[in-house]
Amino acid sequence: MTLTRICVVGAGTIGSLCAGHLARVADISLLVRRPEQAEVLNAAGLRISGKSDFTVAVHATTDPATLPEFDLAIVATKAPHVATAVSSLAGHSPNATVMTIQNGLGVEEVIRRHGPWRLISAVTFMSGTRRDDRHVEYELDTATWMGPYAGTATPLPDVEEVGRLFEKAGLHVEVLSDLCPAQWSKLIFNSAVNGVAAVTDLPHVALFARRDRESDLGHLVHDLMEEGLKVATARGVTLWEDPWKMNVEAVSRGSTLAEEYAHIPSMLADIRAGRRTEADFIQGSLVREAALAGVAVPLTTALYRLVKARDRSFDD
Amino acid sequence: MTLTRICVVGAGTIGSLCAGHLARVADISLLVRRPEQAEVLNAAGLRISGKSDFTVAVHATTDPATLPEFDLAIVATKAPHVATAVSSLAGHSPNATVMTIQNGLGVEEVIRRHGPWRLISAVTFMSGTRRDDRHVEYELDTATWMGPYAGTATPLPDVEEVGRLFEKAGLHVEVLSDLCPAQWSKLIFNSAVNGVAAVTDLPHVALFARRDRESDLGHLVHDLMEEGLKVATARGVTLWEDPWKMNVEAVSRGSTLAEEYAHIPSMLADIRAGRRTEADFIQGSLVREAALAGVAVPLTTALYRLVKARDRSFDD
Repeated sequence: MTLTRICVVGAGTIGSLCAGHLARVADISLLVRRPEQAEVLNAAGLRISGKSDFTVAVHATTDPATLPEFDLAIVATKAPHVATAVSSLAGHSPNATVMTIQNGLGVEEVIRRHGPWRLISAVTFMSGTRRDDRHVEYELDTATWMGPYAGTATPLPDVEEVGRLFEKAGLHVEVLSDLCPAQWSKLIFNSAVNGVAAVTDLPHVALFARRDRESDLGHLVHDLMEEGLKVATARGVTLWEDPWKMNVEAVSRGSTLAEEYAHIPSMLADIRAGRRTEADFIQGSLVREAALAGVAVPLTTALYRLVKARDRSFDD
Repeated sequence: MTLTRICVVGAGTIGSLCAGHLARVADISLLVRRPEQAEVLNAAGLRISGKSDFTVAVHATTDPATLPEFDLAIVATKAPHVATAVSSLAGHSPNATVMTIQNGLGVEEVIRRHGPWRLISAVTFMSGTRRDDRHVEYELDTATWMGPYAGTATPLPDVEEVGRLFEKAGLHVEVLSDLCPAQWSKLIFNSAVNGVAAVTDLPHVALFARRDRESDLGHLVHDLMEEGLKVATARGVTLWEDPWKMNVEAVSRGSTLAEEYAHIPSMLADIRAGRRTEADFIQGSLVREAALAGVAVPLTTALYRLVKARDRSFDD
């Protein structure tokens, strides 16, 4: 597999972190939605600060017809925008591999409807903060997990090659032969942590793991994760990593920091910015999977409704 | 019973609405916490606008020792401040009647520890918005329900006399021989509506009663109230009014109004103002009663933890 031409779809936090690092080892084209973002990226390059620190030249466009042929596309929009973004790639680079990196479940099936590409599924634990249209601060330089998407014949060695390219670019990677257990671990983690952050307006602080008093939030986060675990088990999935352990480790990492330095989960960032959240793809996925499995998830359902209501306050 | 001298403890929204109206038919003294509020009330009088429109002279003080003798005291602080406020009245006007008007359960027992007063329990559905320290806008001119507190020998005719005085002052009243069913109706209503408002940042809008889509908030509000109903039943209480019907009627009253005119439940107002909420007295009461009754209330418990977490964000 040749891997010299990479197209990144979406230049939000994760798209920019991928594009910026990979631009150091490959030719990067960026498909973005807003002409003013394409313009500033082409004029001034893409800047990464924080855990990495550099500026790279990229080729950005809003017009899929002007995109150069690519070997690999990384679809890095938020889940609600994948369908629109990928439909615009229909007919493009049919021999390419396409990587998904969204939260939640099910985005691969959306992409399959639009092209014959081999698919790689990924979930990432990187995080950063967008400073402006061409500048992202790289905060958590944690790993991106990737594996062949079960529904397509993507050979594992191809994923390993993509993994090596990411590593060469300075990103951390774990290649897995089946991503499903990892996707579910992150789904259950995200459903609880992002949802609770969105409705409490709290970043991911130590309280998310505290279970001293009966009223402590950690009980709820734990019970939400237990519901997710039941659904995974009923769907035949053994988790890759224990979401509760992920939660405890994430907040203890930041325990000596004041709240303002704690990680702001993306769903809380969306709420604060008045953007539509990914609730339908995160808590919604889990609620739908629970229904398929015949498992009751009252707390996850409650959280889903609360996040949707909080989200909806920006609709009217 | 003589009812010419009334002391109102606390000049927040409810305290001011009571004091303002009652000042038209009785001598009012006001016990407040902040000297600057006492000063402006004494200098310029208490102004009520909205559903009523007048300014009255009141005698306000921060010093319980300078309070004149009273026939009736109305304790109108928020539940968390009752203990401090009432302890300062110990030894004062032992023959007086004291009326509680807090959200939640249990405040009467706190008052009993500080004096031999006969107790009247009340819950109010009035609402208003504080414009400043001496001005409250009267919004919902709905009733205040009052009845003898079961734990003291308050004769029903005394409550009826207080009720008549309220009516004469221009307030709406319903006198009940046992307030417990009404307190529970309001507790269950408040626990769900105030809690959901506090974590969704939504005023009490039509979505609170909508159950069209699976993700609609009305399902959660309904399920929360069902939990409350189970606890009431297990505790031997038959509700005075169906909380779900109260919810549907309250939002349909405002259905033609835009969101900015919808009622802002006090718990959301507290969150927005950075004040401590009454969660321990509202959702907390219900969780404690559920434990006594051996009834599981997972959704109410989840909401309690979320509100406490949202509240706590102002602690650090």
